[in-house]
Amino acid sequence: VYWVTEGERFSELVGQGFEYSYQVEETIYQGKSKYQKIEILRNPYFGRMLILDGAVQVTERDEFIYHEMLTHIPLFLHPVPKKVLIIGGGDGGTLRRVLEHPVEEAVMVELDEEVVKLSQKHLSSISDSAFDDKRTRLVFGDGAKFVAETKEKFDVILVDSTDPVGAAEILFSEEFYGNCSQILSKNGLLVTQSGSPLCQAKELNKAFGNLRKVFPICRVYFCTVFTYPGTLWSFALGSKELVPEEADLSAIEKRFEKLGLKTKYYTPQIQKSCFILPKLVQEIVS
Amino acid sequence: VYWVTEGERFSELVGQGFEYSYQVEETIYQGKSKYQKIEILRNPYFGRMLILDGAVQVTERDEFIYHEMLTHIPLFLHPVPKKVLIIGGGDGGTLRRVLEHPVEEAVMVELDEEVVKLSQKHLSSISDSAFDDKRTRLVFGDGAKFVAETKEKFDVILVDSTDPVGAAEILFSEEFYGNCSQILSKNGLLVTQSGSPLCQAKELNKAFGNLRKVFPICRVYFCTVFTYPGTLWSFALGSKELVPEEADLSAIEKRFEKLGLKTKYYTPQIQKSCFILPKLVQEIVS
Repeated sequence: VYWVTEGERFSELVGQGFEYSYQVEETIYQGKSKYQKIEILRNPYFGRMLILDGAVQVTERDEFIYHEMLTHIPLFLHPVPKKVLIIGGGDGGTLRRVLEHPVEEAVMVELDEEVVKLSQKHLSSISDSAFDDKRTRLVFGDGAKFVAETKEKFDVILVDSTDPVGAAEILFSEEFYGNCSQILSKNGLLVTQSGSPLCQAKELNKAFGNLRKVFPICRVYFCTVFTYPGTLWSFALGSKELVPEEADLSAIEKRFEKLGLKTKYYTPQIQKSCFILPKLVQEIVS
Repeated sequence: VYWVTEGERFSELVGQGFEYSYQVEETIYQGKSKYQKIEILRNPYFGRMLILDGAVQVTERDEFIYHEMLTHIPLFLHPVPKKVLIIGGGDGGTLRRVLEHPVEEAVMVELDEEVVKLSQKHLSSISDSAFDDKRTRLVFGDGAKFVAETKEKFDVILVDSTDPVGAAEILFSEEFYGNCSQILSKNGLLVTQSGSPLCQAKELNKAFGNLRKVFPICRVYFCTVFTYPGTLWSFALGSKELVPEEADLSAIEKRFEKLGLKTKYYTPQIQKSCFILPKLVQEIVS
C-alpha cells in the first residue's frame, strides 16, 4: 500500500480477506528512514496515525490503551521502580506513562531517530512533554546491543517494539531475554508487547517459550486495541521475584490515588484481572 | 452496501472514515424478509457470515466469544437455571450454549422466522443440534409482547438482539425490563447484549439507566469480538438477588468440570474478572 495519498484509503490486512480500511483525510508526512517507511496520516475517527512499513503503530484516539497497559501493570507491580529501560517506543507514549511514576531515570533506546523526531513534531499529544523531562535519557541505537553491553541496572524493562516478525524478532529471543535478566535488579521485571494472540499465535507461543527459559515467573496479560489486528492484544511479563497474583491491590490503589493518575483504561482493579485470560489465549501459552 | 456479490468486498462502517472490509468469496444467500435484509456471505478468514441490514451479526470463526459470554456468565451465576428465555438469537448460537446446561426448557422468541430457517440451512455449525433438542421451544413473534403477556416464569432471560437503535430499541426500555422482572423467578436475572461501549456509549448509558430503574443489582461485563465495531463488547446484567462478585468460583469450577464444557473463550475464572471494567467503560455506566 505505498504510498497512500490524501483522499485515498489506507488498508491494513488483518486476516486473509479481512482488512481495516481508513479514510485518509490528510497526509501529514511520508518518507523513508534508514530502517523503514514512515507515514503519518490523519483519519476522521482515529486522528493522527503513525504507520511503519504499512502497519499502524499508534493513533491519537486509542494510543492510551496500549501505553497504559504496557507501562502501569509492571510499574505498579514493582514496589519502587526507580530506573526504567524502554526498548523502542519512538512515539514517546510509553515514556510519558513511565514518567507519571516517581522514577529517577527513564532510559529509552530507540533504533530509528527519525521516528522520534517525527513524533515530536507531528504526534506531540502522545508524548506530551516526556522528551523534555530531565529524567529522560534518549539513546539512539540497537536495543539488543544496548542490553548486551550496558553495565547499568534497571528495575523494569519495557519492550515497546514492532511485531515479533522481521527486524524486531531478536527482541523476542532467549538471548535477548537473558541479557535483560542480567541487567535487571534483584526483584526486577520485564514486559514486552507480544502481539495478537489470534493473528500471531505461533509467534506469541515462541516468544513466551523463550521468556520461560530465562525468568522463573512468566505471565501473559491482555487488553483490547481497536487499531491492532485481532484487537485482543497480549503482553508477556517475565519476573525474577514479583508475582502478579500476589500484588497488593489496596497498596496499589493508594499509590494510584497519590500519583493522581488520569488514566482512561487502566484501573488498580485491572492490575490482577488482566492476567485472567480467555481460554484460547491460555492455550497458546500453556 | 446492497447487494454484495461474489468477488466484491463487503464493508461495515465502524467509525467515521473507518471500516471493516471483507472479501466476499461466496454469496450464499441474499433476500429480504418481512423485517430486514438478510445476507449470508463467505469470507476466507471468518468463514460464513450472517449480515442483517448491512451489519455483521455472527461469523463461524468468532461466534463463540459472544455466545459463550452472553450465556455462561448468567447461567453459571444462577445456582440452578431450569427455565431460560431467549429473546432474539435467530442463529441458534445462544440456544446451543443454554442447552449445554442441564436446563429443563429453553424458550426462544425470535421475530424473524426467516433468520432461523436460513441459519439452520446455512449456518448449522453455529446452532449445532440446538433446534432439534426436545427442551427447545421456538416461538416466532415479538419478544417485547411475549414478556408482557406470558404467565410463565423464567430463571434467566437472555436478550440476544440487534443493537439498541431502531427496531430493537424497545428491548432496551424501562417498560421491557419491568416486564422481564415480572416473569423472572425470585432469584432470576437478565442479561442483554448492550453494544459497543466505544461506538455506542450513549445507547449503553441509556439502556443501563433503564435497567437500574428496575433491578436492584445491575452490572456491565465485557469481552472482545473481532467482527463487532469497537471490538470491546458489553453485556448488561440485571439481577434480583444474585450478585456477580459473590459468585462461588470453586463451586462454578466444579459445575463446569462436571458438564464437560468445551469452551474457547469462557473459563470459570473469567466469571468474575469480566466485570472489572476498563476505566472508560466504568465511566459510561456510573
